[in-house]
Amino acid sequence: MDYSKYFSADVPSFLRSPVREIFRKVDLSAICSFAGGYPAACTFPLADIPGLTERVLAKYGTKALQYGATQGVPELRELIASRYGVPVSQVQITTSSQQGIDVCSRVFLDPGDVVLASNPVYLGALQSFKAYRADVRDIPSGDASDGYLSGGGQAPKFIYVIPDFNNPTGKTLTLTERERLVALARELDCLIVEDSPYRELRYSGEAVPTIRSMAPERTLQLGSFSKIFAPGFRLGWIIGPEPLLEQIYVCKQCLDLCPPVLDQYLAAEFLGSGLLDANLQKTIAEYRRRRDLMVSLLEKYMPAGVTWTYPEGGLFLWLTLPPAVDTVALYDRALAAGVAYVAGSFFYTDGSHRNTMRLNFSFVDEAKMEPGIRLLVSLLGGNQVPDC
Amino acid sequence: MDYSKYFSADVPSFLRSPVREIFRKVDLSAICSFAGGYPAACTFPLADIPGLTERVLAKYGTKALQYGATQGVPELRELIASRYGVPVSQVQITTSSQQGIDVCSRVFLDPGDVVLASNPVYLGALQSFKAYRADVRDIPSGDASDGYLSGGGQAPKFIYVIPDFNNPTGKTLTLTERERLVALARELDCLIVEDSPYRELRYSGEAVPTIRSMAPERTLQLGSFSKIFAPGFRLGWIIGPEPLLEQIYVCKQCLDLCPPVLDQYLAAEFLGSGLLDANLQKTIAEYRRRRDLMVSLLEKYMPAGVTWTYPEGGLFLWLTLPPAVDTVALYDRALAAGVAYVAGSFFYTDGSHRNTMRLNFSFVDEAKMEPGIRLLVSLLGGNQVPDC
Repeated sequence: MDYSKYFSADVPSFLRSPVREIFRKVDLSAICSFAGGYPAACTFPLADIPGLTERVLAKYGTKALQYGATQGVPELRELIASRYGVPVSQVQITTSSQQGIDVCSRVFLDPGDVVLASNPVYLGALQSFKAYRADVRDIPSGDASDGYLSGGGQAPKFIYVIPDFNNPTGKTLTLTERERLVALARELDCLIVEDSPYRELRYSGEAVPTIRSMAPERTLQLGSFSKIFAPGFRLGWIIGPEPLLEQIYVCKQCLDLCPPVLDQYLAAEFLGSGLLDANLQKTIAEYRRRRDLMVSLLEKYMPAGVTWTYPEGGLFLWLTLPPAVDTVALYDRALAAGVAYVAGSFFYTDGSHRNTMRLNFSFVDEAKMEPGIRLLVSLLGGNQVPDC
Repeated sequence: MDYSKYFSADVPSFLRSPVREIFRKVDLSAICSFAGGYPAACTFPLADIPGLTERVLAKYGTKALQYGATQGVPELRELIASRYGVPVSQVQITTSSQQGIDVCSRVFLDPGDVVLASNPVYLGALQSFKAYRADVRDIPSGDASDGYLSGGGQAPKFIYVIPDFNNPTGKTLTLTERERLVALARELDCLIVEDSPYRELRYSGEAVPTIRSMAPERTLQLGSFSKIFAPGFRLGWIIGPEPLLEQIYVCKQCLDLCPPVLDQYLAAEFLGSGLLDANLQKTIAEYRRRRDLMVSLLEKYMPAGVTWTYPEGGLFLWLTLPPAVDTVALYDRALAAGVAYVAGSFFYTDGSHRNTMRLNFSFVDEAKMEPGIRLLVSLLGGNQVPDC
């Protein structure tokens, strides 16, 4: 039976995540994976879960197992609102921050609409924008707007950006860069989707004001519990202007009626009891050590001509290799040898920059990092492969 | 700031669920609610949750809190596959069966595409189809196809149906009706979305074969844990042909990366240990009593000229009142008096049948049913209102 005629016009624009495709084939625990954006399992509050569960069930009883409000349970919305200094009415809980990206795409994008995004860009966002057949273009550099519209550029619906510890590059926008971006959005009269899953994971340097704080009237800020609680809960949130959240709320009724309820109460209990902040401090210390270790290993082993970003937080750094290296072509050999990364070109809308790669430093045990990096170096340089 | 220009062309077609809007305003526990499709809280395995959690954490450790496979965790997919006699490759876990409806809409529907559905139709499905600007039409009655295409009808993408204990009517399709529907789908060469959230809740009569069993090559069958475990987990599944599930899988990467992981392991443990089936037997006994009670109350109190369906399972029955009664107009008065229902016209694509209503018999405590029905009767007939 030929099923192709049944598919919608969007389907040919669906992109497969190369990262998820890797995970489909490979047992991550058996190799040195610098590929995924997985948090370290040791940061998960595993020991707290039974106690949290008992407290939630004692407090809320069967309410924790029943359908909940589409906006999210009030207790969790209030805690998020208070943590980030906004009214509860400006908080929508989402079933993962990926859903936050997808619902923004659904509510704002028609085929052909322009989204301005950094290039390279987070793959899950690119997948969502492309699946709605949006035209994803680079954020114009230089001065605000920079003749973007007068040069024939179509007004974008929104600018998408991860300002803190960007996925994939690990870079953080400076205050000046944020001001320029906000000025650009105001000049182009478009919205900003500030994707902020890593902001609370800062290991060095000083926090820069959020874009939401600089342009609250036009910013939808996406948050995530995946890196400050655990990704298995699939919980995130959107903070934004009420008229925008109102349409997102109606859309979310179609998507899944409401976010998972027991999970929301667990997150509320974890956050409200102070356990989240205590765990976050341990997580930050852990990841700071892993970042420092990875950077020192790169300094020690990488040959001349290889450069990398120095992330002040988050989960990733970005390697630029000599132009002759093709990280896409190298990939299968790397996987067979026992080390995984994501080829940088996957994050480029045009598939360029085949001499780059994204390295994750949060997932691999510290003990595996040195053999993993040496393995990678040997593949780049053709040296002998050490055991990993 | 005027936000209207930012919205996609789909947004004006978003419908608000009148049911969810009611729940936004009213404390359900304070009134007699025959409105929602909420399961009875007493059927939730509340006492089992701490034990299930401990067993899951002991078995899977931090894996239960990490990102999982987009298709769902293998353990749960295997249990579903084995329960329903299909290969694992034909099972996709969804974050609620509402997501199952939405992802089918997203993967198959373009604006203007035809969906054939029963009229009245489940509101969450109507919301999803309308949000993709589909043209939702009645399933043609009479013999298969019945000149549908030759009469100028556009070929539908799929037929949407809840064959067992339909929401909202409570009706079950006979074998002959199912055969006719399958013949129609084959003649029109379209898919079938068999929405099956209530099938395991049968209180009397004999099971009729599923539509999937009759047309596996073109049926996507949606299942739900909401009525056999608890809705707070937001877990469902899709069983269908692999080429269709493959696109749904890619789409689901955009939607939320993967379903909630701890919740999936809890569902797997609940199902795999036999607790689900034991709890289901108790749930069926409980709901059978409630259905019988509601039917006997309707027989006792409803005035002449009121008729209702007799559901063999599920959560709802459907009342048809004399033509002069307007259940939409009556609604605010009913709510103020302390009884809630859903006006039947909300389930009609054209808003007709204002003399009908959907009554849910699963949520209200048995003790509240008699005063609730008497209250409803008094509102219909203008009699004195009893306490509820």
